[in-house]
Amino acid sequence: MLPPTAPHPDDAPSRGLFLALEGGDGAGKSTQGRLLRDWFRERGREVVMTHEPGGSALGTQIRQLLLHGDHVAPRAEALLFAADRAHHVETVIRPALHRGDVVITDRYLDSSVAYQGAGRDLDADDEVRSLSLWAVQGLVPDLTIVLDISPELGRARRGAVHDRLEAEPDGFHARVRARFLALAAATPERYLVVDATEDPDQIHDQVVARLETLVGVTP
Amino acid sequence: MLPPTAPHPDDAPSRGLFLALEGGDGAGKSTQGRLLRDWFRERGREVVMTHEPGGSALGTQIRQLLLHGDHVAPRAEALLFAADRAHHVETVIRPALHRGDVVITDRYLDSSVAYQGAGRDLDADDEVRSLSLWAVQGLVPDLTIVLDISPELGRARRGAVHDRLEAEPDGFHARVRARFLALAAATPERYLVVDATEDPDQIHDQVVARLETLVGVTP
Repeated sequence: MLPPTAPHPDDAPSRGLFLALEGGDGAGKSTQGRLLRDWFRERGREVVMTHEPGGSALGTQIRQLLLHGDHVAPRAEALLFAADRAHHVETVIRPALHRGDVVITDRYLDSSVAYQGAGRDLDADDEVRSLSLWAVQGLVPDLTIVLDISPELGRARRGAVHDRLEAEPDGFHARVRARFLALAAATPERYLVVDATEDPDQIHDQVVARLETLVGVTP
Repeated sequence: MLPPTAPHPDDAPSRGLFLALEGGDGAGKSTQGRLLRDWFRERGREVVMTHEPGGSALGTQIRQLLLHGDHVAPRAEALLFAADRAHHVETVIRPALHRGDVVITDRYLDSSVAYQGAGRDLDADDEVRSLSLWAVQGLVPDLTIVLDISPELGRARRGAVHDRLEAEPDGFHARVRARFLALAAATPERYLVVDATEDPDQIHDQVVARLETLVGVTP
């Protein structure tokens, strides 16, 4: 078993703000990311926009293996996602937070728990979560925004299928959705769930309203 | 923490024989592997020769990332080795053992413990070992043969440096050596340590003498 991870010295309370956007493909994460970025920049904050998998140079190569390769053993897949995340956090996210920046990531740890734990034949979500927490030395977002959408609507919005995960049937995406909602329900103080079928500007208003309750948001 | 792994259903007592060759670069693992392969084939056994990292098609791509890439965060490196191993075991090693074959692998789990745990700045060997054991669902070799050699002799035998790990200074290789010996000392019933400076045929004789005490070796 992996022993508990000691906190990383860079994760002091005075660091920047770490936000994650989660939800099925087609839920509008990119749009909300851009709206959030602009909102922070108008307030004078430095913003780093990033994404998983593939948010670093190494991660881009790992992403190629994962999304466009042949069969990957389930545990190998989980470990590759975790490797991508470990490198992404050490080389991109943690340095930005240390500078005091706002980091907005399109997908993070919960995507692994939802997609691999729910969709694949791994023993349990908590193994995937343990793996990811070890990879990032315990770094979790200040707020994770879940853009909730039904599998049917997500599929309609995505249009043409272009990778292995998106090609999974609706039942897979329904299980993924249920996992995101369960994660949010387990620690509601770290989550905001929004209805992704609403107007993008209305969703953004809900996100901002919640952000304004967080420490470190206003300059 | 990762929960303990349930045994894999293919790992029944009636399976084949799983042998690993470990030791520093230049210790003669390839030579001993070939001698062992020929010995088993003369006795009518099917033999699968393999290696880590990179013993599968996916693994070859991961190996490229690891051995010839730029900086890789230490935890990302450990996770990439574990991903390679998970895929290698599921697609190459376990199917061969299930058929009753002899599997001889040039490096396995102990290389990760020795190289990453000893040489890099990870917290502890047992984290790397836990990660690997999770990756392989608990599959360990019936016998691990450690070809023991001093860093100085290993360097002289290797000749020109051609990858990142081999380019490490002697102190690194001395720590790696000490880890291999400590692993062997911890569970001697699963290890054979031989002096890699002896004549290759004499080393082979020692390996065979030990093999003949193992269940499943003679047809």
